Parts: sequence; structure tokens; C-alpha cells
Amino acid sequence: MKLIRFGEVGKEKPGLEIANGVRIDVSDFGEDYNESFFGSDGISRLRSWLGKHGETCKVVDQNVRLGVPFARPSKIICVGLNYAQHAEEAGMEVPKEPVLFFKSTTALIGPNDDVIIPKGSEKTDWEVELAIVIGKKASYVEKKDAFDYIAGYVLHNDISERAFQIERSGQWCKGKGCDTFAPMGPFIATKDEIKDPNNLNLWLKVNGVMMQNSSTSDFIFNVQQVVSHISQFMTLLPGDIISTGTPFGVGLGLNPPVYLNQGDVMELGIEGLGTSRQHVKAYGSKS
Amino acid sequence: MKLIRFGEVGKEKPGLEIANGVRIDVSDFGEDYNESFFGSDGISRLRSWLGKHGETCKVVDQNVRLGVPFARPSKIICVGLNYAQHAEEAGMEVPKEPVLFFKSTTALIGPNDDVIIPKGSEKTDWEVELAIVIGKKASYVEKKDAFDYIAGYVLHNDISERAFQIERSGQWCKGKGCDTFAPMGPFIATKDEIKDPNNLNLWLKVNGVMMQNSSTSDFIFNVQQVVSHISQFMTLLPGDIISTGTPFGVGLGLNPPVYLNQGDVMELGIEGLGTSRQHVKAYGSKS
Repeated sequence: MKLIRFGEVGKEKPGLEIANGVRIDVSDFGEDYNESFFGSDGISRLRSWLGKHGETCKVVDQNVRLGVPFARPSKIICVGLNYAQHAEEAGMEVPKEPVLFFKSTTALIGPNDDVIIPKGSEKTDWEVELAIVIGKKASYVEKKDAFDYIAGYVLHNDISERAFQIERSGQWCKGKGCDTFAPMGPFIATKDEIKDPNNLNLWLKVNGVMMQNSSTSDFIFNVQQVVSHISQFMTLLPGDIISTGTPFGVGLGLNPPVYLNQGDVMELGIEGLGTSRQHVKAYGSKS
Repeated sequence: MKLIRFGEVGKEKPGLEIANGVRIDVSDFGEDYNESFFGSDGISRLRSWLGKHGETCKVVDQNVRLGVPFARPSKIICVGLNYAQHAEEAGMEVPKEPVLFFKSTTALIGPNDDVIIPKGSEKTDWEVELAIVIGKKASYVEKKDAFDYIAGYVLHNDISERAFQIERSGQWCKGKGCDTFAPMGPFIATKDEIKDPNNLNLWLKVNGVMMQNSSTSDFIFNVQQVVSHISQFMTLLPGDIISTGTPFGVGLGLNPPVYLNQGDVMELGIEGLGTSRQHVKAYGSKS
């Protein structure tokens, strides 16, 4: 299944994208896609419910706004430098074990919402990433069991302000957690839809020009390793998000570096996870 | 007022500690201490409600477990190296602007709950800290206005695993976000109770021996500066927590360093914010 949330910011309803690209409203199922839903086998329960009630679900207007396809999670944990060529372009060493950092949940926006360049920013950058949605409480999980703890996958643009991240007194969170810096979606693909998350093409264009074009087969640490590794340090809750790192081709790595400006358009996609598109605006701009 | 939450883990009820140290149940007010409460002037509304209903509130049993005195916030943001002498003992430079990192909300525990040393940890350390509770949505706040955005203050032990934090491939969150690493409470003191948060004694003992004993007057960046600074990078939501850093006297700074072991007891306190006490246990231990 492909889980979506649609409607006005803060008033999103749960829905599904079904086989022919049509979207349906599943509000009548009575649950949002949150910790309680994922933690109580909500995907299976929704599937059963759909068997009985699917035909009576309303079709959603094609022009509806898509929201973040999950309710606010307890945390978004990101893996840094998880593709060897990207570590090189960032001028950093290939890590011996996954580098982790948090992204604030206040950064979350829908897949096609505007990305706002923060006040004083000159180095706002893009990063297409495969994100994992956790399906059950995970602590000290072994690699071989990692898939049991995954509910699905979602497309993420891990927007990053490089000066805030690297030049502002240590720790990356200043450049990773800004408002609008986590466009997610269009949908969560439940894990049965994705044959091998460690072998998916992913790409990102800026103003129509291909900037990132790679495959998750180039991961240094694959999905199982990442889930297992993080669970050694903290409990993952149902609905928590793990973003697995970005491949080569970010603005920071160009010579000279290129960063986002008001009016730019980012388009990105991952095989099986759809595409998203964000307009870039400067903070306070009315256009 | 002094806001508490009490009862079993996950089923805490809201309460208040009143003048003579007695605790009362304010469940009948009908709200938890969460984003919606803080964001809708809940403290003033609770105060008014108490004027009418305070005398009929049940007294809470003295032996009740205290929980985290707030519901799960969207984020816990911590300031690192915010006391000059502590930066020195940690072998790090005094920062030019606040160093920020996130602590996962899954680390939260009640003020007197057990702290669990994670599997494989040999360097679990203590850090008494003044934490701020945000009272209203804050973005690009000026220092002079910072107090308008504060709901209150709370005692925090920012437990840290030094090997995970420093020796495990960069970024501190691996050593800061482990389960049980954020004992908070006993209560939130609303801001009217604390005359000057930038001049409070704070201390921490391990097994009865004073290890940290300092004052927030030694802050490099005071409460107003910290709130303003963070709000330049991300929106703070009502109920969000900012922990302001720890003074000199952590285990890492001793020569040789000393870390926590099963059976140790930490006691800590801040002037006006009460005291807390945590027993240390090893992961998987039954005692």
C-alpha cells in the first residue's frame, strides 16, 4: 500500500494512493498514521478494513495538497556520509561506523511544499535520501532481524545549510533542523512494495538539471545495518524515521559550490517511492 | 506553581506541588502538560481553575512515583560546553556561539527512576543542568524578548556516554540519546517562581560525594541568549525543552576519569527546582 496524508497544513487526513494513481480518503478507518497506528499492526488492519470498505471510500481531488505522510514521530535520525563518493565531495573521511544526527520534527513539510531559505543563509543545499519508517519498538536489534522492525519507506529531501552545519560552533543540527528542511513523501510505500531497499535508483534535479543520480546499492551501511546500529544506542518507536544518507552530487561538492536561491525548483525521486517537487523561497518573501 | 506528573510509567496524571510540599491531583482540569496546554496559556488557565477547584483536589500519596513533569515534547535541544571550566575539563575550546545538539525524547524518565547503563558502555557520566520549558511558539526571537517565550524551568541530569559521544564516528547524539539518559523533574517551576535563572546554585553528588557544585551565573551564554540563538535555527514549540549545559565536575574531567557503575546513586538539585535521585543499573540486571 501507499499511505498518504492530504489536506491543509495541520488538518491532514489519512488516505491511500491506489493502483491506478487514484487517491482515496480513508478517514473512516478512524486512525492517523502515528505511533499508535504503526505500533498496533495498523498496516495489516488497514488492509483488512480496505477489503470491506475500500469501494465506499471517497476519491480525493487530484489537486489536493499532500502533507507529510505520517504524523509527528518521536524522532528523525539521519545517517551522515553513507555513500563513499559523497563523503569525499564533502571533504570528510569515510566513517568506520554510521555517523548519526537528529533532524528536528519541526522541519517536516509535505512533499511539494515550499522550502524556505532561513534568514542569513547563503549555503542551503539539497540531499535526496531514502528514509525508513519504523514499524515496531526496536532496541538492540540484530541485522538479520532488522526488516521485522520496518513498516515502509519514504522519499526525503534532507535540506542542509552548510554554513550553519559546519561553520557555527560544532554539531550538525543547526544546519539540519531548520523549518521546512525535511520534505517527506509523496507517500509511505509499505515494505512489501519494495523488493530490495538496498538497490533503488534515486535522483535529484535543480531547475531541471540532474545533480544527483545514484543507487542505494552504493550504501556504505545498508538498511539492515543502519537499523541495527541505531537500535544499539536508543529505542526506536513505531513511526520513527531514519534517513539513510545522500549520494554524490550535492551543492557543497561542486567546484565552486552552488547553493539554492529564491525561485529555484528541486525535483527528486526514488524508484518505487514516487517523486516530489519543492519551490525555494527566501524567508519573508511574499512571492 | 510547581507542575508535577505522577503515577505509573505511561499513565501519568497531572498534579501540583503546593506550598507546604503537599502534592495534589489536578486531573479534573482535563489537560496534560503538553504542547496544547503550554501553547494556549494553560498555566494561567490552571491557576484560575485552581482558585475555584483547588480545595476539592485530592491529595496525592507521598510515595507515588513522579513521572517526567511534561508530556513528550517535539524536541529536547541541549547546549554543550556552556560553562568555561567544563569546556576545559572536557578538553574542548570555549565556543564562540552556543554548541547545540539534540537529545532523543525516548531518553526521558522521571526524576527518581533508574538510570540504565547501556550494553557495552564503560563511560556513562553525569551532568546536572538547568532546563527551560518553552511556553509559546518561538522563531527569530530577540534576546530582550526571550523571557516571553519561557513557561518555566526544570532540573535535568543530562546523562552522557563519553565513548559513544566522542569515540564513535562523530556527532554527539549516540552518547546523549540512550534510553533513561534524561531524568527530568521533580517539577516544572513556572517562571514567576524563579527570580533569576541566570543566578541559581546547582549541584550533583555521586554516592554522597559532591562532584558538581556551581552556579548558573557562570554560564557563557545565559538563558536569554540561548533561547534567542536556537530560535534563529528552528522554531521552538510550546513544551519544547532546552537544556542549558553543565558546569565543571563531570566524571570525564577527573584524573583519572571516573564513570558510573551499577549500584551508584546520583543526587542532584537546583535552587528553587527541587532535587532528584537516580539509582544506576546495568542493562539487563535484575537487581
